Amino acid sequence: MDSPKIQANRKRGGSRRLKKKHRSQVTPQIIPGVRREIPTYDLATEEGLDIIEEKASWILKEVGVEFRGDPRALDLWRGVGADVKDERVRFDQGLVQSIIKKTAKRTFTQHARNPARSLEIGNNNVVFAPAYGMPFVHDADRGRRYGTISDFQNLIKLTYSSPWLHHSGGTICEPVDQPVNKRHLDMVYAHLRFSDKPFMGSVTAPERAEDSINMARIAFGNDYVARNCVIMGNINMNSPLVYDQAMSGALRAYSRANQCPVIVPFILGGATGPVSMVACVAQSLVEVMVGVALGQLEKPGSPAVFGNFLTSVNLRTGSPTFGTPEPALGSFIAAQLARRIGLPLRCSGAFTSSKLPDAQAMQESVTSLQTALLCGANFVLHAAGWLEGALTIGYEKLVLDADYLGAAHTYLKGLPIDENNLPFEAFKEVGPGGHFFGCAHTMANYETAFHEQELADTDSYENWCDNGRLDSIQRANRHWKQVLADYEAPYLDPSIDEELQDFIKKRKASMPDIWH
Amino acid sequence: MDSPKIQANRKRGGSRRLKKKHRSQVTPQIIPGVRREIPTYDLATEEGLDIIEEKASWILKEVGVEFRGDPRALDLWRGVGADVKDERVRFDQGLVQSIIKKTAKRTFTQHARNPARSLEIGNNNVVFAPAYGMPFVHDADRGRRYGTISDFQNLIKLTYSSPWLHHSGGTICEPVDQPVNKRHLDMVYAHLRFSDKPFMGSVTAPERAEDSINMARIAFGNDYVARNCVIMGNINMNSPLVYDQAMSGALRAYSRANQCPVIVPFILGGATGPVSMVACVAQSLVEVMVGVALGQLEKPGSPAVFGNFLTSVNLRTGSPTFGTPEPALGSFIAAQLARRIGLPLRCSGAFTSSKLPDAQAMQESVTSLQTALLCGANFVLHAAGWLEGALTIGYEKLVLDADYLGAAHTYLKGLPIDENNLPFEAFKEVGPGGHFFGCAHTMANYETAFHEQELADTDSYENWCDNGRLDSIQRANRHWKQVLADYEAPYLDPSIDEELQDFIKKRKASMPDIWH
Repeated sequence: MDSPKIQANRKRGGSRRLKKKHRSQVTPQIIPGVRREIPTYDLATEEGLDIIEEKASWILKEVGVEFRGDPRALDLWRGVGADVKDERVRFDQGLVQSIIKKTAKRTFTQHARNPARSLEIGNNNVVFAPAYGMPFVHDADRGRRYGTISDFQNLIKLTYSSPWLHHSGGTICEPVDQPVNKRHLDMVYAHLRFSDKPFMGSVTAPERAEDSINMARIAFGNDYVARNCVIMGNINMNSPLVYDQAMSGALRAYSRANQCPVIVPFILGGATGPVSMVACVAQSLVEVMVGVALGQLEKPGSPAVFGNFLTSVNLRTGSPTFGTPEPALGSFIAAQLARRIGLPLRCSGAFTSSKLPDAQAMQESVTSLQTALLCGANFVLHAAGWLEGALTIGYEKLVLDADYLGAAHTYLKGLPIDENNLPFEAFKEVGPGGHFFGCAHTMANYETAFHEQELADTDSYENWCDNGRLDSIQRANRHWKQVLADYEAPYLDPSIDEELQDFIKKRKASMPDIWH
Repeated sequence: MDSPKIQANRKRGGSRRLKKKHRSQVTPQIIPGVRREIPTYDLATEEGLDIIEEKASWILKEVGVEFRGDPRALDLWRGVGADVKDERVRFDQGLVQSIIKKTAKRTFTQHARNPARSLEIGNNNVVFAPAYGMPFVHDADRGRRYGTISDFQNLIKLTYSSPWLHHSGGTICEPVDQPVNKRHLDMVYAHLRFSDKPFMGSVTAPERAEDSINMARIAFGNDYVARNCVIMGNINMNSPLVYDQAMSGALRAYSRANQCPVIVPFILGGATGPVSMVACVAQSLVEVMVGVALGQLEKPGSPAVFGNFLTSVNLRTGSPTFGTPEPALGSFIAAQLARRIGLPLRCSGAFTSSKLPDAQAMQESVTSLQTALLCGANFVLHAAGWLEGALTIGYEKLVLDADYLGAAHTYLKGLPIDENNLPFEAFKEVGPGGHFFGCAHTMANYETAFHEQELADTDSYENWCDNGRLDSIQRANRHWKQVLADYEAPYLDPSIDEELQDFIKKRKASMPDIWH
């Protein structure tokens, strides 16, 4: 399955010196996603799902969706008989559903630069990716500040180094020290240079999406990219019910190149959606289906992901809130709907409103992450690092969340009820009042018996005091510094690297800097 | 349903002065448990549950359970044809199950001193109670230290003041400044004096259980206690497969008085149970069934609760670990087994190994609490305050967990799919690109739309800075101090108070102090 280009480059880079260097590198453990062996939690009844689908069809027909500034999208809709008036598109019963069911994929592979890290997106596979889109970064030493390209690179390195994050993410922070119209080049380069995990490209304008895909073509080869998904784009639509030209244009760019748009409504209940979470789910279904169907019209059979992003608003202050109970419940239902329509699901993440990786942050983040585990999400963006309602990504928060995702791997495997898990002879061996520490079954299984979180302290109080009484933030602070100190970049063929740098140089030279 | 004694005392206490004083008091909101409207998460298949039940029957017959120093228990077992050899009791296929199914209650009411706070234990009702049994207390100002009776009273007051904790708990901390053989009197008094929620009595010796029940008789009246459950006892058996005389004696004392023992194995996978969580669940089923059946033999039809307490051990260090994935999964299965045998379930809690209410604490606690919500637990002991693997209860942790339980109330209510929750006309009113803030449906529902956690900060970064950049611990620290400052004791009839104090005085005078 390796791209010919990768294979060729491997040959080309096969000098003794390079090979040796490659081998000596510290390669983080490779876990290509985790298979969910536990059942999904199905909150709504089949009748309840029918009602929501009916309401969604009503919205599609009676209210419709606007495509602003994208005549090509309107043409595509006209072509399949949708009712297009000005920029408003209305859809007859079953139209978008039939387009999706006809050609959209239930599951697909996103290929990584390192083929061992390629990921299945769909079925029972679960993929964890870091937070996305934050203008600020936070760490315990320097507090909160605007993100830079140096932060971006650090956060990609930390993500690369965690076995529990399978995917490199996308705009892990906004490198605001780079021009708005050029920073996507530096971001895509950082994913390709400092990681070999799958990643996401730019979506903020169709031409930036094209740049991202072109850089993927340099890394993977044109033919390979035409046939395989190697890059995703996170298409945040303008809820309620609007696609602006930047988003629908970027969406079509990814689909056209046979790459994967993740279609994500941005629904804050009470603001960009109703104050009813059930109604938000219906809206989400409408918005996603229209986006996925548009991608299929652009290129039938191209991959796409059903994105779900629900949250609530504090109606007293107008602030969005995260990790609260209603969006968690809504996500369960959205996931059921995604399975009905037959699309891979992006859902939930380590959401919080907290400014710090404190108790509040983890109450909210774990509530939200547990939902992802149980609802059957396939791609969990924002699984690590999120702070302050998507405004900030934290260095400590990233490694604490990633550590929790390790436990999530064990959770998703469930508890098989089989002979080795029911060692009933051990009860005879140990007997009433005995101790299982030394029994045969314990000796045979103790090394793999229980998952241990690296950053969680389970030591005695006395040992904890002797080790400096560190709290989670302090342990995480030490940890990420050590990981960055130990980091070694994965191998990248020097000729590809050069080609990427040339491309970036030319593209940057072709336009003036834009700063806001 | 009020006890005649309560009614009479109300009449007796009906002087104008007392009535007025009673009325002026700050009474915390009364929430008599919360009804779970969401489905349970059933991890194991029916076939899997059959296998575990078979293994449990095998353990009952082939290994058996020991009752140490309790000839009365052995007599009761002989009376129903169990195989008793020395102190080991073995049970034929179906024996304990049939005793339970014949007379144990699926659900019952634990009556509170304030009848409005009485709780249903069973069915779909969920009751939250604070942590239990911790020798140490922690707060941000004074750190960790041994608990005192003053801490005990403070923690009962904080529990009483939270609407989200329905139950006053039991040994919320060990008041180690009081003699071991007398402190139960001060503890039961504190529950009756500083709260009017249901509570738990002593279990550390049969005579202390009797004292607890006798104090309940003073508060509720003898006849009322004979007919109604007003006190619980948390019977921690000596896993694996042993009841010592203190525990089986206390168990029988509660059952004999028609009060409720909660039968809780203490299973640390790898130490007091096998390193397989599935096998720990089978062991738990054995240990619980035997205890519940013993209570039924002592008094058929008396209430009892299926207690589940599973955790793992760090096999590298021997330390128990909490809030880890395996016990969470095991709890789902234990809950399914409790429903099969038809008993109310105590399960899970806000478990953690962390020494502080930090990120680790909430990663672990929320993982564990979410399990309680989804497995169908009826009585969640340890729902607030737990730190450091049951060694410490924290003031800040208590109020932070309790705050989270508020969100849990909303979670348990689910998302009904009905017309008010699907205000699809709102989509016409708002239209693509609009805003739901001011629409009719939002205006009609915004006051009750989303749950807001009191201690979670959802403010803007700027406001958060202006307010002193407080983290969760600092906010919680301010909060519990304010709650204690505002606290007013619920009404207690002075004649009952006097009678309780007389009882305590006499009992304390009847024995020398024992300190360890």
